Formats: sequence, C-alpha cells, structure tokens
Amino acid sequence: MITSTLLDSISRPVLLLNENQARENIRIMAEKARQSGVDFRPHFKTHQSIQIGRWFRDYGTTKITVSSVEMAAYFASDGWDDITIAFPLNIRQLSEIEELASDVHLGILIETIEAAQALGLRRSSRFNIWIKIDCGLHRAGVDWQDTPRVHAIIKEVQKFSNLHPAGLLTHAGNTYSARSPEEALSIHTETNKRMRQLRENLGIPELSISIGDTPGCSLSKFFTGIDEIRPGNFIFYDAEQLEIGSCRPEEITVAMACPVVAVHPERDEVVIFGGAVHLSKEAFLHEGTPSYGLAAETLSNGWGSIIPGCTVARVSQEHGIIAVPTQHMSKFYPGGLAIIIPTHSCLAAHLMRRYLTLDGKYFEMMPV
Amino acid sequence: MITSTLLDSISRPVLLLNENQARENIRIMAEKARQSGVDFRPHFKTHQSIQIGRWFRDYGTTKITVSSVEMAAYFASDGWDDITIAFPLNIRQLSEIEELASDVHLGILIETIEAAQALGLRRSSRFNIWIKIDCGLHRAGVDWQDTPRVHAIIKEVQKFSNLHPAGLLTHAGNTYSARSPEEALSIHTETNKRMRQLRENLGIPELSISIGDTPGCSLSKFFTGIDEIRPGNFIFYDAEQLEIGSCRPEEITVAMACPVVAVHPERDEVVIFGGAVHLSKEAFLHEGTPSYGLAAETLSNGWGSIIPGCTVARVSQEHGIIAVPTQHMSKFYPGGLAIIIPTHSCLAAHLMRRYLTLDGKYFEMMPV
Repeated sequence: MITSTLLDSISRPVLLLNENQARENIRIMAEKARQSGVDFRPHFKTHQSIQIGRWFRDYGTTKITVSSVEMAAYFASDGWDDITIAFPLNIRQLSEIEELASDVHLGILIETIEAAQALGLRRSSRFNIWIKIDCGLHRAGVDWQDTPRVHAIIKEVQKFSNLHPAGLLTHAGNTYSARSPEEALSIHTETNKRMRQLRENLGIPELSISIGDTPGCSLSKFFTGIDEIRPGNFIFYDAEQLEIGSCRPEEITVAMACPVVAVHPERDEVVIFGGAVHLSKEAFLHEGTPSYGLAAETLSNGWGSIIPGCTVARVSQEHGIIAVPTQHMSKFYPGGLAIIIPTHSCLAAHLMRRYLTLDGKYFEMMPV
Repeated sequence: MITSTLLDSISRPVLLLNENQARENIRIMAEKARQSGVDFRPHFKTHQSIQIGRWFRDYGTTKITVSSVEMAAYFASDGWDDITIAFPLNIRQLSEIEELASDVHLGILIETIEAAQALGLRRSSRFNIWIKIDCGLHRAGVDWQDTPRVHAIIKEVQKFSNLHPAGLLTHAGNTYSARSPEEALSIHTETNKRMRQLRENLGIPELSISIGDTPGCSLSKFFTGIDEIRPGNFIFYDAEQLEIGSCRPEEITVAMACPVVAVHPERDEVVIFGGAVHLSKEAFLHEGTPSYGLAAETLSNGWGSIIPGCTVARVSQEHGIIAVPTQHMSKFYPGGLAIIIPTHSCLAAHLMRRYLTLDGKYFEMMPV
C-alpha cells in the first residue's frame, strides 16, 4: 500500500510498478510452462533489472533470454548462468561473447555458415547454437521453408567441437499485428506447426524448438510440440497487449505517473509532463486512431480502471496530449497526476531506467 | 579526421557527431539572429551536453532554452545564467524552480492565472514570465485569438513584484508537418504575423515575441517583427528536416554507426544492431512509406552521401531492418557498419546519452 506521501512526492514522470501482480504474471507463465513440460526462458529485455530478475527465481526460473551482449553480462553478474542472446550474432562483439561464454552457458543465434565458423574458431569457449528461423515475421532468420540452408548451417556447426547445436529458434513477432486473440493464437499455432515441419524435414529430432512472443504464449492454454518459450513483455503487459487481447486490464503492472501541466476544456485535451522520452513514440491503433498510451484512474495506492476514451493522442519530446471525453475532464487539473498505461512497456521502461513499486521501492535498470 | 582504428573499434550502436559542421550550423544561425537584431536563445534539449553547449559560447550565445527543470539545473551548473524552461509550469516542481531562480535569470512559461499566482507567491525569487501562445499547433498555450485571456494573465502577472512579464512565446511545431520549404516558411510567416497581431491587440508593445522551430528559423533568411528565436534541432538536423527541406544533406551532423548482423538478398533487406532503443520509434514519410532513418555511405572518416532508396523500414527493440535497392546490397555485409541518419536527432541523442566525435572524443549527456 502506497502512502499518500509517496504519490505526493512525484514531481516528474515516474514509472510505477505493481510488484504483486507482476509476480502473479510470472507465476502463471512459469506454471503453464511447467505443466506443458517446456523450458521457460523468459526474456529479460523487458525489465532490464537485476532485482526484478530475482523474482523469477522464486518461481523456479534458471534460464533467461536477453537482447544484447551487454545485457547478458549484466545478468551474469547476478549469477544467471544459462543465457540466450536472442539477437543475430554480432561478429564485432566476438571477443566479449567469447569471454562471457567462459563463465556462463551461452546461447547464440546464427543464420549463416559464416557465423558458425566465426564462433567455431573461438575454441576456448563453448556455445549453444540456435539457428534463427523466420516463420513469417521477416525480421531476421532463415526462411522456415529453406530446409537446405538450415541443414548446411547445422552441418557446419557440427564440424566444431565447441559448438553445440541446441535447436531452432523463432520469434513470432507478427502476433503483434493481430487485432484479436483468435488471430494472434492462429499465428502462434501456425508458427509452431512450421517449426515442427522444419525439424521433421531436417530429420534431426533432437533439435529443440524455441518460440517466444507474449501474445502467443499468453493466449495458449498449453504448449505442445515445442520445447522452450521465451516471452518477456508478459511480466508488465501494456496497452498494445490489451488491444490484441493477450491480457486483461488488471494484469497490466506498469504505468507512468505524469504531472498534469495544463488543461484545455475548449478542445477536451490535457497536457502532461510525459512525452516521447518517457512513453516512447510507439503508437498502436486504438478505436481507429494512433494512441501513445491510455489514461487510468489515479488512486492513492496506484491506479485503477482505464478511463474510457482517454488516450494519449500526441507526444513530443517532453509533452503528452491526452484526448479526454468531456465528462471526464474534471479528473484532470494542473498539479494533479495522470496515470498512463504505456503502449509498449518494454520501450517505456527502457527510457525511464528505474521503477517505483507501489510500496515505495526504487529499482534501477542496467546502465546504458 | 577519424583514424581507421576508431571506426574499427565500434562494436555496438554509436552516435557519431561531426563537430566542425555542427559548429558551422551554430555559427550560421547565431549570425542570422545577430544580423536580424533578434535574441538567439537556442534550445539545448537537442544535445543535452555541457561540452556541446560550450561551443555556442564561441559564437556569442548567452541565453538558452531547455525543456525541463532538471535540464535547467544541469546547464546552470556550467555557468549558464539566463535560461528559459520552454515547458508549461509544472507546479509539482515549484520548490526546485524557486531554488533555481535564486541563482539564474529563469524564464517560465505560463498559460493560466493560477500559474501566475503560484509563482507570484514564491516571493524570494524573481521570474521572467512568458505567456505561452498557441498559434495553431494545439499542443499547449492560450489561443492567439483569445486576447482577453492573455490580457487577464498579464494583469495577474503585474500584481506581483517578483514577476517580470517578459513576453509572448510560441512554438510553431506545425512546421514539422510541412512537406516543402515553402509550406514550412508560410507557417512560420503566418505564426509571426499572429504573434504580432496579438501583441497589437493587447496594446503592450514592450512585450517580446519569442518563436522557435528549426524549419522556420532555418528557412527564414531574416527575422522581422519578432524579438527572439529558440531553434534547437538545427545543430544536428536529421532525415525529417531533410525531407521538409530545412537543411541540406551535408548540414546533418549526427549519424548512428550500426553493426550489420545479417543480410537478406532474397528480399533486399539488411538487419542491423540498431533499433527503437537507439533510433527511436519516430518515423517520417519518405517516398510514401514510413522511415526510421536513411542509410549513408560508410567512410573511414565518418559518413558520405545518403544512399538513394536505402531506408530503415522497420525497427524493433534492438533490430533495425534497412530496405536496400538491389544494386546497393553489396555495400552491406555482416561485420560491417551501416551509418544511419536518424529520423529525429533529438530523440536518437536522448536515447544514446553520448556522442563520439569524428576526431575521437566522447561527450556524455546529462544523467537521466
């Protein structure tokens, strides 16, 4: 329970974090993975915090995913020793990667023969090799239908005794463009099917299949035919996940407390201290128009329901403009606080570099 | 001149800065202000760096603009003593503002009678009061046609001996939506006209008029009928300014060096280590499609021409995808560096927190 003194002390944008619900989000996902018999390797790029990472240990997590070499080193410093860097091998960081792999079980994503060779020649360290597969997102990876190319990369990996072919890894990030739970779930199901098809085509059943996107992992009741999940955003969720239907409003665990600096009843708008450098420029389509976040009721112990129709319509560097239906305008006044559910919590957290829990603890993120 | 060792040492995204051209951009704007007889009060939110701020002193700058109380305190710590916080008064920071105003000549933006009263009651400090005017951007401020409201605020300001009514201030940020120099210039001209009209309607000729947007200030050859300019972005410029036509390619002074991690000739795309946490999610319409930045030729001493048709088509947290015309694909290879002109340099700089000049100096930004 936050003291009223704590909310009163907020004078500039602060990212609030509901620890109890975040722990519940972790528990649910960890439990679902356990019941399905798949490995749970949550993506820590969402929170980037050693303290929050420790909450996962309370639910049995021993393996993690990160998005950069620096982030791997940061979490390794807190004792995590089984880390996948879910980003295509950056050969400009080979020396750092090699050094890190001497301390931890390091998973590396590759999508070319050359990447396998570059790692194979770093003989002093062992690497778990994941072949990055593109199941339709078209961001990175080998096309899932290109069995010969995947096969050639695995053959190359097998030439090096310090490389362990761990499996096939994909990110079905295209679930983020889904606008209904059914659509997201159908992309998830199709992705898993494609990954199994590829493994079958390769004829190497011992390859693990790793998938990881929050909409798919949240909406699936059970995981079948795969070996590992790597969702990250589910610990916080956000307005975009709500729009997709992959969470309920009460499962959202971060929100930005933003001082109200002006109200414009003549155009039903409120100006907040809270802009692109706090919420990010990530927008999602909410009732047909771009939204940079949704306003929720300000409570003395955090935030309450999302206020219908209250959306952050525009952001500039430090300013945010909330479009407010007339009947809700009285909720906002200069000197008050608006609470904004960010569009994309990973980017908002990245910008803020710290959290304030509802019981008044500050958690810092890794240094940039 | 960068040594090849310096470019070679880049292993993750780094924001390069061309100091010579940045100084030239400052010199040109400062000189134009001087010749026009207007005050030059550049916006330091763009660079957020004490070292870069010092370059402005070499061209006679003594007054600055910032976007937050923290930024004002940061630059005050380096001896700047005439600072306007170009953000509506945040009354939750009144104590910090009062303390700061005891050390520096502090300009504060207000748009209500209540804000005037709140500052007036902080009698131990003096404040320069700017009435924030909305000339059509509809972000913050009093509508330029609402003379009675502006008049009432000024009347209130005059009741307090510690408040000095400095003038009328606007930000014609709507020039950013212009897609030609003529359009941006016409918004700029119309804004200035509206501000003069308001001053005339008020009948208080001693009020200064302060305007500030990089497209308008860059495209104007001369400033007439106004008293102060506050552009910020012009020190760096960026892809969006280039698209508007407010700069030439060779005037752009920041670019992101990003390791190439994968190439996909089958779909003419390149994957870089450089995503939303480096470039931001700010997009502009480039040849009809959203762009998160433009790729330029990688040179041993920095970057060269913009490569026609090479645009950052998508970004996720750490990944960027460059769409590359087939004939330019050979310029990109894993292990190489792509150089990206960001869409919006202020946001990219904010995310990176440091610069690497082409002659190898690192400049840190203010702490977040």
